[in-house]
Amino acid sequence: MSVALSRFPLGEQSGPQLLSGARAAIGPVLRSAVDSLREPLNRMGGYHFGWCDSAGMPAMGSTGKALRPALVFAAAVACGGDPGQARHAGAAVELVHNFSLIHDDVMDRDELRHGRATVWRRWGETNAIVLGDAIHALALAVLVDGVPDQVAAEAVMRLEIATINLCGGQYRDCAFETSPPVDVTEYLAMVEGKTGALLGVSCALGALCAGADHARVSQMYTFGCQLGVAFQIIDDALGIWGDPQLTGKPAGNDLLRYKQTYPVVFAMTSNTESGRSLAGMYASLELSEPASVAQATRLIERTGGRTATQHQASHHITAAFEALPPDLLTGDLEALARLVTSRKW
Amino acid sequence: MSVALSRFPLGEQSGPQLLSGARAAIGPVLRSAVDSLREPLNRMGGYHFGWCDSAGMPAMGSTGKALRPALVFAAAVACGGDPGQARHAGAAVELVHNFSLIHDDVMDRDELRHGRATVWRRWGETNAIVLGDAIHALALAVLVDGVPDQVAAEAVMRLEIATINLCGGQYRDCAFETSPPVDVTEYLAMVEGKTGALLGVSCALGALCAGADHARVSQMYTFGCQLGVAFQIIDDALGIWGDPQLTGKPAGNDLLRYKQTYPVVFAMTSNTESGRSLAGMYASLELSEPASVAQATRLIERTGGRTATQHQASHHITAAFEALPPDLLTGDLEALARLVTSRKW
Repeated sequence: MSVALSRFPLGEQSGPQLLSGARAAIGPVLRSAVDSLREPLNRMGGYHFGWCDSAGMPAMGSTGKALRPALVFAAAVACGGDPGQARHAGAAVELVHNFSLIHDDVMDRDELRHGRATVWRRWGETNAIVLGDAIHALALAVLVDGVPDQVAAEAVMRLEIATINLCGGQYRDCAFETSPPVDVTEYLAMVEGKTGALLGVSCALGALCAGADHARVSQMYTFGCQLGVAFQIIDDALGIWGDPQLTGKPAGNDLLRYKQTYPVVFAMTSNTESGRSLAGMYASLELSEPASVAQATRLIERTGGRTATQHQASHHITAAFEALPPDLLTGDLEALARLVTSRKW
Repeated sequence: MSVALSRFPLGEQSGPQLLSGARAAIGPVLRSAVDSLREPLNRMGGYHFGWCDSAGMPAMGSTGKALRPALVFAAAVACGGDPGQARHAGAAVELVHNFSLIHDDVMDRDELRHGRATVWRRWGETNAIVLGDAIHALALAVLVDGVPDQVAAEAVMRLEIATINLCGGQYRDCAFETSPPVDVTEYLAMVEGKTGALLGVSCALGALCAGADHARVSQMYTFGCQLGVAFQIIDDALGIWGDPQLTGKPAGNDLLRYKQTYPVVFAMTSNTESGRSLAGMYASLELSEPASVAQATRLIERTGGRTATQHQASHHITAAFEALPPDLLTGDLEALARLVTSRKW
């Protein structure tokens, strides 16, 4: 996919370098926060983050990309701040992201994450709900323990409003599965909550920690939120056209689960014969095997859904960059945006 | 039950007056917070609080006692503050209490609360998890929106540490059901988290909002925490010896669910024949009818469990009052403590 990023100068650091730097910066804060929980919540948390196995023995599991903390740091630097001031905010957004993953896995009945049993699959639903609640609380404790005093109240307010939007997005995403049809407006409102809000607040908290004024904090929020919407739309596309070897998910996974992703929503509301056929396949639960997934994919392509999805993602990337005044548009932010958009599909 | 409260002067207001005053004070803040959630989360929240039925039509359901907000206000006044400064803190502890009830009902599979279907029973587990998460976030947003700026960070830290302890207590309470035997020390650690932490932080936040120094905030925390432990132990006793007409729960409810309540833990660890018989009934799941409940109750009484439970509750009430210097020991705090201890059993 090409989303016209070439007009922005290359970042000082590559996207992957920014991510590994963010992981290193928040690592000790995250570890000491999760370790502070009482046994066995600390062990369950450590397992979720990939630091230990279910018995508590050290492991080298995947700990997530740390895109959100990387955005916190890049936004702080763009606003003239020291990334060190934003370390606790970076850990806090990662904790919120992970509490929501732990609860989402319960709600979606997902059994695997990063190739290992999810927390609810390993310890049961009850314990996964409790662990998620504790990690949510931990996020706020970590945040106020480290952000400058004068911005603590605003930082908490912004993070929790984003969390409320995240909950609203998750609600809608689940509701879509039982109450189609969904139109593009409804889809975008869901994604703004589910993915946009937390990427948005990551950028806003970075700016806030750097002492930026209200206008710049809001501009950073919009940048992150639009980037998040693009991220989700691209994720939706990868769920259909992505290389399973790169995405780690079977091709057509979202179709097999009758998810209302962007390409599906576009196709079904396209008022075309192919769109109606796809809606029929969803309504009669006909998607159960590779042949029917290939058929559904062809129907989406015939409505122009693949191209429309690329255009929609590009539109949000453009909106993200247009939200920033030129002096905030740094190479690091651009490198992270490139990372979001450059995945192959 | 008599717990030697007669040495304290009568409060200016009675306990029930303090509760209804607290409900009136936090009502508008709670309503506007829950209303701010997007449909249908606002309606689900309104239903849980008893303001509307499941379709959103106004209702006059029970909205809870508001013991925690009443403690916030009484602690604020004891520390020389204006209760108005503590209104948002009062609403925040009530929101935390209710988010935990919504999640607990999912975890415990409780189908009724205040005589109405619980949120998960009405809207499903997924939506109850999401609603609880949103109300948790709302609690923090409400808190920082209203507490004095200079104490916002400490207030958030204290509320979230209490929430983490609440999660730890809930984890232990659930674990006890599958991994007895439990001893009194383990029981008390569980109850300090499950009930003590939130009553403790209610008093601490009241003090904090009144501008009290660190020592007084800590004294208030201990007062509330010990009161909470007493509250739970008395609740445990009511679950066995309470009048179902007053408690609203069937007699022996906790025994039928094989809960490890204080009287049960005391009896089972009493090293007596009756205690071993009770342990046998629990181990072989023999409690299924009124006759076996009556038999288990007699076994507990034969170990001295009923008297021991009264003594243990009195011990924590005494510890609560001993934590406070004389000038903090107001009639209002005493009236609330009396309310906790005076329920008939």
